[in-house]
Formats: sequence, C-alpha cells, structure tokens
Amino acid sequence: MRTITLLTDFGLKDGNVGVMKGVIWSITPDAQIVDLSHLISPQNVREAALILSRSAPYFPEGSIHVVVVDPGVGTERRPIAAQLGPYYFVGPDNGVISMLLEWAEGQDLPIQFVHLDNPLYWLPEVSHVFHGRDIFAPAAGYLAGGVPLDKLGTSIDDPVRLTLPQPQASGRGWLGEVIHIDHFGNISSNIRHEHLDERKTWAVSICGVEIHGLVRTFGERQPGELVILYGSTGNLIVSVVNGSASDRLGAQIGDSVEVFISNGN
Amino acid sequence: MRTITLLTDFGLKDGNVGVMKGVIWSITPDAQIVDLSHLISPQNVREAALILSRSAPYFPEGSIHVVVVDPGVGTERRPIAAQLGPYYFVGPDNGVISMLLEWAEGQDLPIQFVHLDNPLYWLPEVSHVFHGRDIFAPAAGYLAGGVPLDKLGTSIDDPVRLTLPQPQASGRGWLGEVIHIDHFGNISSNIRHEHLDERKTWAVSICGVEIHGLVRTFGERQPGELVILYGSTGNLIVSVVNGSASDRLGAQIGDSVEVFISNGN
Amino acid sequence: MRTITLLTDFGLKDGNVGVMKGVIWSITPDAQIVDLSHLISPQNVREAALILSRSAPYFPEGSIHVVVVDPGVGTERRPIAAQLGPYYFVGPDNGVISMLLEWAEGQDLPIQFVHLDNPLYWLPEVSHVFHGRDIFAPAAGYLAGGVPLDKLGTSIDDPVRLTLPQPQASGRGWLGEVIHIDHFGNISSNIRHEHLDERKTWAVSICGVEIHGLVRTFGERQPGELVILYGSTGNLIVSVVNGSASDRLGAQIGDSVEVFISNGN
Repeated sequence: MRTITLLTDFGLKDGNVGVMKGVIWSITPDAQIVDLSHLISPQNVREAALILSRSAPYFPEGSIHVVVVDPGVGTERRPIAAQLGPYYFVGPDNGVISMLLEWAEGQDLPIQFVHLDNPLYWLPEVSHVFHGRDIFAPAAGYLAGGVPLDKLGTSIDDPVRLTLPQPQASGRGWLGEVIHIDHFGNISSNIRHEHLDERKTWAVSICGVEIHGLVRTFGERQPGELVILYGSTGNLIVSVVNGSASDRLGAQIGDSVEVFISNGN
Repeated sequence: MRTITLLTDFGLKDGNVGVMKGVIWSITPDAQIVDLSHLISPQNVREAALILSRSAPYFPEGSIHVVVVDPGVGTERRPIAAQLGPYYFVGPDNGVISMLLEWAEGQDLPIQFVHLDNPLYWLPEVSHVFHGRDIFAPAAGYLAGGVPLDKLGTSIDDPVRLTLPQPQASGRGWLGEVIHIDHFGNISSNIRHEHLDERKTWAVSICGVEIHGLVRTFGERQPGELVILYGSTGNLIVSVVNGSASDRLGAQIGDSVEVFISNGN
Repeated sequence: MRTITLLTDFGLKDGNVGVMKGVIWSITPDAQIVDLSHLISPQNVREAALILSRSAPYFPEGSIHVVVVDPGVGTERRPIAAQLGPYYFVGPDNGVISMLLEWAEGQDLPIQFVHLDNPLYWLPEVSHVFHGRDIFAPAAGYLAGGVPLDKLGTSIDDPVRLTLPQPQASGRGWLGEVIHIDHFGNISSNIRHEHLDERKTWAVSICGVEIHGLVRTFGERQPGELVILYGSTGNLIVSVVNGSASDRLGAQIGDSVEVFISNGN
C-alpha cells in the first residue's frame, strides 16, 4: 500500500479533489490518499513549494506527492514526475519541487526526472485545463500500483527551479522576509534557527514594531502579547498568544523581517 | 472494497461528515470513503446535481454516491437508493439524481430505485433532522458490505426529477445561463462543446461584456485578460487568466450567457 | 484495522493535519484515519469537547479520538492518553475529555489515564509548539498498532475537568444558554429533550425574541420562519427554515435561552 498526498489550489467546493481520488482508485484501488492542502492561494507555486518541503519528511518512505498548483496548465510547461531520494513527486514542471530537489542534491541521493509524455498512462481524453485529473492523478495511480517511474515518460534533467528568497546578513543581524502566514495568523519568516545564536539577547523588527525576547512556546506569556519563537519547522515566527499576529500587525507575505542584537529586555 | 463518495451541504466544522463515516465503518469497516464536497450552498439541490453528474464518471464502477442536500429532511419526501447502470446512489428523493438518471436512461442501462423504508437498515434511533447519519450512511454501509439494493426497501419507479435549464437557439447563436462558479471564479455556462462549431469565430456576451475568441487554456493569454474556453467537462466557461471572472463581472448563478458569431476578434 | 479521528483548530490550509496523518501511517500503515473537524475556533477547548462528545458514539468500538486544541502546548500542561470504556483518547490534559469522562463514570466503565511521558513513543525531536505532530500523532499511531495504553506513559488519576454550563430551573421553565452555532446557523442550547415535557405547549425566548411551538423538522414550516425543534443529539435548537437563525437573531455562544410554558400558539 503506497501513500499519495495531494496539494492543490482547487479549494474544497467543486468536487475536483474527489475526482482525482476517483481516478487514482480506478487505477490502484488500495492506494492510501491524503490531503495535504487544497487551500494554497490560487497559482501560488512558492507557497505550495514551502508546504510541500516541510510536510514531505513526515510521510512514509516511497510516498508520492502530487502537487497541482499549475498556472501553466495546457501550455508548453511539461507535466513531470520525479524521484528525489525517498520521495516521489508528480506535478507541473514549475519549480514547486525546488526545495526538495536542493535537499536531495545536498544529501547526494538518487534523483530522476521524467516528462509525463507517454499517453498510455494518461486518461483517454486529456482536457487542456485539468491535468490534475487527466495526467497527474493517473501518473500517481500507476506509480502507486508499481509501474516504474521511467515507464511514465522520457527522462529529463533540466527541471525548472524556483529561486527562493534567502535571509541576508545585515549590519546588526539578519534581514529576511515573511514567507508564510498560517491559519492562526502566526507569521513565519525565512530566518531560521541555524542563523541565530540563542545565547545572545535579540529582537525582531517587523511592520514597524520591535519585539523583544524569544520564548519557547505561546503559554509562557499572557494572551494578547506579541512574542517571537521558533516554529515547528525551525523558522523564526512572530505570534500573538491566543490571537492573530497577522491581524495585529497587518503583515503580508514578502514583508521584511529583521533580527538584531537587542539592548532592551 | 467498495468506494463511497459523500456530497453534502454540511460544511466542515461541526463533525457531521465525520460522524457519517463512523456510522459507515461501524457497518462495513473496510469501505473506502471519499469527500466529494461538503460546501454545496445550503439546500441547493441543483448545484449538488451538477457536481454529482460531472464527478461520478471518474469513480470505480460500483461506487456508491451518497448525497445529503436535503431541505425536506423528516417530511414526506422519501429517502431512496438507486442503481443507475454502474453507479449506486443513496440520498433524498428530491431530484438530485436527475442528470445521472437521464444519462442512464439514454444508455439503456439497468435502473432500479428503492424507498429506504426498511428500518432493519437504519440506525436504531432516527432523528427527524439528520437522515444523513441515521438512514443514508447506514444504507451506504450495508450496500458497501454486500446487502443487495432491493433488501433496503420497497421498489419504486417514480423518483422526483429536476428540470434543469437548457440553452436555446437564439437568432444569432445560443442563449444559455450561468450554472456554476468555481473556487477560482471561473464562470461555467450550460452551453456545451456540442452546441458550437469551432471553425467559426464567435464571441460571448455576459453581464454586459463581450468577449471575443476562444482559447484552449489560460496560459495562452496574459494574466488579467478575460477569456472564453471549454472547461474540463465540455461546458463553455468564462475566465480571467490568473484571476477571478466572477469578481470581475459580478456574475451570479442564473445570469444569461449568449454565444454568437463574432465580427471582431 | 483501528479507526483514528482527528479534531483540531488547525484549519485546512497549512498542511499540518496531513502531516499528522503521515506520522501515524509511518508507525501503523493501515490505520484508518478520519477528520472530525479542523475548524474548531482557535483555542476553544469547550467547543472541541462538545463536538467530541456528540460524535464519538457513532464510531466503531476501540476508535482512538485525537484532539489537538491546545492553548497550553509546550507548557506544564500534560500530554495524556486515556481509555474511557469503548473510547480511546489522545490529546492535551485541558478538560476536552470531560463530557466523555462523566459519561463513562456514570456507566461505571473501565477508565484509565496516562501521562504521555515515555519518549520512546514520541518523534525523536519534539517541538515546543506542535505536539500534535510530535507526541499525539505518534501516540495514536502506536495505540492503533497494538501498543497497550500503559506502555505510553505513567498512570495518572487527576485529569483536568471542565465545568460546562448546565441549564437551571427558572420560575417559569428552564434557563440555559447557547452552546453551539452550526454551519447552517442553527443555534443549539444546552436545554435538552429530557428537561421538557412535550405534552405542554411551550415557547423559547432568545435574543429578545419569543418563538412559539415546537416542530419536528424544518419542512413543517415555510422557508424563512423561525422554529424550535430538537437537534439530532437531543438538544433544543432554534432555526430558520432554509436560512440562518444566527444571522437573523445575532446570537452568540453563551447567550441565554429560556424555555417557558406558552400562552400563545
């Protein structure tokens, strides 16, 4: 039994996610399918890349991660599948896999990409606007059923890569940016645990506000207080205890976040 | 292992969808259950009928489609189950099955309806307001477990039918209407591929705006442009590339859509 | 095959629910996982307790109910697991289990609590802010795979209990409060079937409005009418036929609801 995860910007009202599952089960009836998210902002490949890279490590080895955030559906952009060490990927060639690919390269793991150009493994009719149903779901279904990756199409070695923003050393610390705002309104930056020295006392500047002192978890401060802490994936986050930091600060994806040595606190 | 799909207007916050799955698994532990949508507009039988008819063909033969969009729950309206060729249906007798029924009749497939009036296959206590849990989920569970359809109740042959709006030939083309607006804001009409001759150049009039030229997919035009194309189910749709056509045009379900021979383009 | 239900305030966009499923399946690949709700209001333990207590009875015996509504994550509050008669529970020790616990005590069923303090059954690294992934999902996975409850940690007998509001006898009937508002806008009170004598004619006062006469189901009255009826769990609810009572009345959780003998109707 193979696990297939689905990550899309389809939303939940139109039945399209269910249809992809129907297609997969029509091919491999015992595939184990799980929703990662279907509420990625429309066409936001970078957001999907982030959710994928931080979720994939928690799934069983050999899991197949299907991503359909696909502004180029039906154009020249290639539908692809890949093996990246223990992970399999199916989706559009738009860079959504970049972070996992970099990780697999860094670990010197086996990497293989194919262009999903073999119509034997598509649905019989392929729409120009719903490759999730007609190309990606079948590919995932066949992979889960044991078809080897290289049967699904022609080998390629030039997948599209996204350049993701990296934090920069600033005169007084690190300058990064907001990369995600979660359901609770927690603001996640691209500044990570490994950039910072916890023995020093430091502060964060975001949206014109300065926040002092790192806490380990929300409950160390009173409800309503702004705090800085490490999120569960090691990124520095800004939160309001039992509240929404994004509502409080009006933060947006891409806003700058600076960490510097604090004089206060 | 039988697949059961669930399509309701329950939303996702109250636990009622989960409860239906618990009831099904209490009867048939290995049933494979999938959500089609739980965000049908409250009591909107027509919207549910549309989502059901375009999703059902992608599920394995023998799948059981449970629909609980049920403004008449607890009244004289009958709870029913049906076989329509390769599909099974469980839900209220309110016409939500009409489109699948017409299709099965057109194909001359075996059709059978039963009134779910056998309390042996209900939960021991039946609420007046939650037949999804007390009648429909058990019926689906027993069907999935191998109980024949005609054990579940008395045979009937007069299911309620919905009359769905059909496009009409107009002096200059076809006059139809908006039948669905999806998560992305794409506007779907009831004018279909088979109504139109692609060798001619034509245009669409909707919400006081005229749109020229058919594209095959979104990426053929620039972000922000209004385009017309065929959706993945063969219906003519109006979209904004990487944007929301329904927000741009203020379109609503039921608005008129006209296709006519274009002089421009 | 054991069923595991998940009930959280995580929302559906960030991938965290999927990650918990990945962790569970990495431990017990054939666990059957179902979402109860992930739209509990942030940090609202009482709302989670209500949804849990009314949903749990519909799942197979031995099901494991995981709740992650956890304002105290990473503080001194204990992560716990429990057996309460036929139910298993995994989650924070914050009283979310109170209603099921009272029920199990009332039935004189076997009850056992453990503090999840055995790191053998955690993920190797435990974040201070995501015990759902690092402690609760693994505990559920091991329980589903057959590890006995008492292996997961030290036995305890002092779980936190919530005091939930109970309706009070008033001079003219019962005075209760709003405890839930569902997706449709139905307003649920804590006054129950067993408080009321259906042979008498009574009325409900809520938000300054008086509603007369009990109906059995929505369809007994015209669309738009305010009605009172019993919900599917036996609580007295206020509804608008095919509409939203909470929008109409502006009701909030905690608003008072009074039932009294009616002179009218």
